[in-house]
Amino acid sequence: MTESPGRVEAFSDGVFAIAITLLILEIKLPHVEHGLWAGLLALWPSYIAFLMSFFVILIMWVNHHELLRMVQRVNYPFLFANGFLLLTVTVVPFPTAVLAANLATPDAKAAVAFYCATFVAQALVWNLLFATMVRGGLLRADVTAETISNVRRTYYVGVLVYMLATALAFVRPALGLVLNASLWVVWIRLGYRSESSVSSLRSES
Amino acid sequence: MTESPGRVEAFSDGVFAIAITLLILEIKLPHVEHGLWAGLLALWPSYIAFLMSFFVILIMWVNHHELLRMVQRVNYPFLFANGFLLLTVTVVPFPTAVLAANLATPDAKAAVAFYCATFVAQALVWNLLFATMVRGGLLRADVTAETISNVRRTYYVGVLVYMLATALAFVRPALGLVLNASLWVVWIRLGYRSESSVSSLRSES
Amino acid sequence: MTESPGRVEAFSDGVFAIAITLLILEIKLPHVEHGLWAGLLALWPSYIAFLMSFFVILIMWVNHHELLRMVQRVNYPFLFANGFLLLTVTVVPFPTAVLAANLATPDAKAAVAFYCATFVAQALVWNLLFATMVRGGLLRADVTAETISNVRRTYYVGVLVYMLATALAFVRPALGLVLNASLWVVWIRLGYRSESSVSSLRSES
Amino acid sequence: MTESPGRVEAFSDGVFAIAITLLILEIKLPHVEHGLWAGLLALWPSYIAFLMSFFVILIMWVNHHELLRMVQRVNYPFLFANGFLLLTVTVVPFPTAVLAANLATPDAKAAVAFYCATFVAQALVWNLLFATMVRGGLLRADVTAETISNVRRTYYVGVLVYMLATALAFVRPALGLVLNASLWVVWIRLGYRSESSVSSLRSES
Repeated sequence: MTESPGRVEAFSDGVFAIAITLLILEIKLPHVEHGLWAGLLALWPSYIAFLMSFFVILIMWVNHHELLRMVQRVNYPFLFANGFLLLTVTVVPFPTAVLAANLATPDAKAAVAFYCATFVAQALVWNLLFATMVRGGLLRADVTAETISNVRRTYYVGVLVYMLATALAFVRPALGLVLNASLWVVWIRLGYRSESSVSSLRSES
Repeated sequence: MTESPGRVEAFSDGVFAIAITLLILEIKLPHVEHGLWAGLLALWPSYIAFLMSFFVILIMWVNHHELLRMVQRVNYPFLFANGFLLLTVTVVPFPTAVLAANLATPDAKAAVAFYCATFVAQALVWNLLFATMVRGGLLRADVTAETISNVRRTYYVGVLVYMLATALAFVRPALGLVLNASLWVVWIRLGYRSESSVSSLRSES
Repeated sequence: MTESPGRVEAFSDGVFAIAITLLILEIKLPHVEHGLWAGLLALWPSYIAFLMSFFVILIMWVNHHELLRMVQRVNYPFLFANGFLLLTVTVVPFPTAVLAANLATPDAKAAVAFYCATFVAQALVWNLLFATMVRGGLLRADVTAETISNVRRTYYVGVLVYMLATALAFVRPALGLVLNASLWVVWIRLGYRSESSVSSLRSES
Repeated sequence: MTESPGRVEAFSDGVFAIAITLLILEIKLPHVEHGLWAGLLALWPSYIAFLMSFFVILIMWVNHHELLRMVQRVNYPFLFANGFLLLTVTVVPFPTAVLAANLATPDAKAAVAFYCATFVAQALVWNLLFATMVRGGLLRADVTAETISNVRRTYYVGVLVYMLATALAFVRPALGLVLNASLWVVWIRLGYRSESSVSSLRSES
């Protein structure tokens, strides 16, 4: 299959764009019995859940973008590995809603743990997707072994940190969320690095 | 009409991407009176319904992709046959929600039968779409009679198996769902085959 | 402004695709106190409303497609006239939900009249959009005066028939809906004709 | 990073298209105890909120379009500044729903102030995005210093006027809304001007 990744990219972008925009539907109307401002303030768990999921999906979109730039063609296993990744993206509004509804209740620990656990699953699928790319020989010739091992290492770390965040959530839910969010920095730095390695190779060629 | 299938493809991709992402809205917030974990577990019918519909739409998207690659141009009947197909795609969240709401109730048989029946309708429309392509002379010159009869046969089988799954649902709903899901393998294999025949022809030309 | 209509087309396609896919969210879960099948049957007003709106949006998408093929460039007034058209497209799920909720009630007359009236507004905006195209000199050189007057006449007829359907709804709501749906044939035939005139001109050049 | 803005544009367009189409979901079914027409009339706050947000998003889409036409390449800070802008776009359905639910209640002042305040945040992010473009050297060579200072000035004015509208809302909510809407004219005129300066430069080159 000598197909270019164009249509997969367009479809994936569509799913990312829709998932990130649907998040707002999870914020319900504020109760107004104590005034609208009090009602709006009481929605703070919804705002936290919304912002966390918005930035995760945004960063994942950027990374997906970077990853597809390393690809010169796609095959069937890639289509389905990518489909699994999109599954973990479309799912995000659900744990987000669960987090928003329970963050200010005695169920906060379970809610944060569930929220973090969905990202463990997602981090595993990023590993699967990258393995499919490497094994299928889909990478461009100018992607170095160093870039590959760099990406792979970061994806392993991602799984571990999300597992740690999940475990931490059972004890200190707030810290679990903070650890979860701290991974944004890792993903952003990954993007920078893989980008610069591709760019430098490109400018050489 | 000498139009290329580009814009139909983009519009269809949009509908597939939105339908697959809207599915998550059907999973409602868990009840927490027995704790959040118990509430999350009790949502198992929603997870099954979500996963089944997610993978069906994903596979249909891949197959739609393959089908449009056989096309060299589109005409008006094709636009409307494709519109009927999109109708059966946008509809999916509704039987999915019905399935999720009733799978763990005495109405499970009816719910699974209704769910499977919507795919009978969809399989009929795939046949209609392909017939429109063949009759309208829209196929590329390098699509062999063998590929055509292969696709046609698989689409006939699809209708029959979905009808069987619908009938089975009235007796053993769980088996009906399993038979329904077993068609994924058929659709994936169809994709592989039509792809390889197109590819081999392409490399010859 | 020498811009090509590409990005307007992509944005409009996105809005059409989303609006047509959101329609299904208006079909609520069936009540099951008399069994699921009875509950599914009782949703017939929702199915009628869904199907009517689905086909209208589908046909409007095809026509929008045809209309933009007549355009060689876009200007600012066109962007906003097109924005008004998209307004009348994104609005459709609301009268659809109103129709579905009231078609089997004593409010059926008002519901059908309201539903038809939104299409009067939409038909007026199609006229506005086309006038913006003609006055702004946005049409391609090969679009004949005959095609222009043909499109214009059909759009006028559209306004009149939708007004008639609205009036009829106050007396016989079912007939109002049928008249409303009968316009699909007019729009489809308009598409055929404007297409063939463009095609024939293209093959000459 | 020598990437063209194509994929950012496509992703942003997707988010704009979805956000603008989701707005209609905020209009709930009318109550019919006093008849459907009375119920439809009683929804006037929803119609005002819907129309205001629809036109704001439409105009922002047009402006985003214009802004990206000034860009010759994108970098990482731009991706995230643009992400912040998309955050303020996806958020719009929430203040819209709050406005619709409270405009006809004693909480109208708070609702309008909250609605206007979200656009203060958005106007700040437009400033951030433009600063990122200028500082990163992302602008095309033919964008003049005059155009830059023109855009910058308009964005400053936007922040100030939205702040004024927010303050005004605490006293006269209706006037706050009118002032908010009056900014449409400013944004539209900005679009016209930056467009004509780009066009004139283009025709010279």
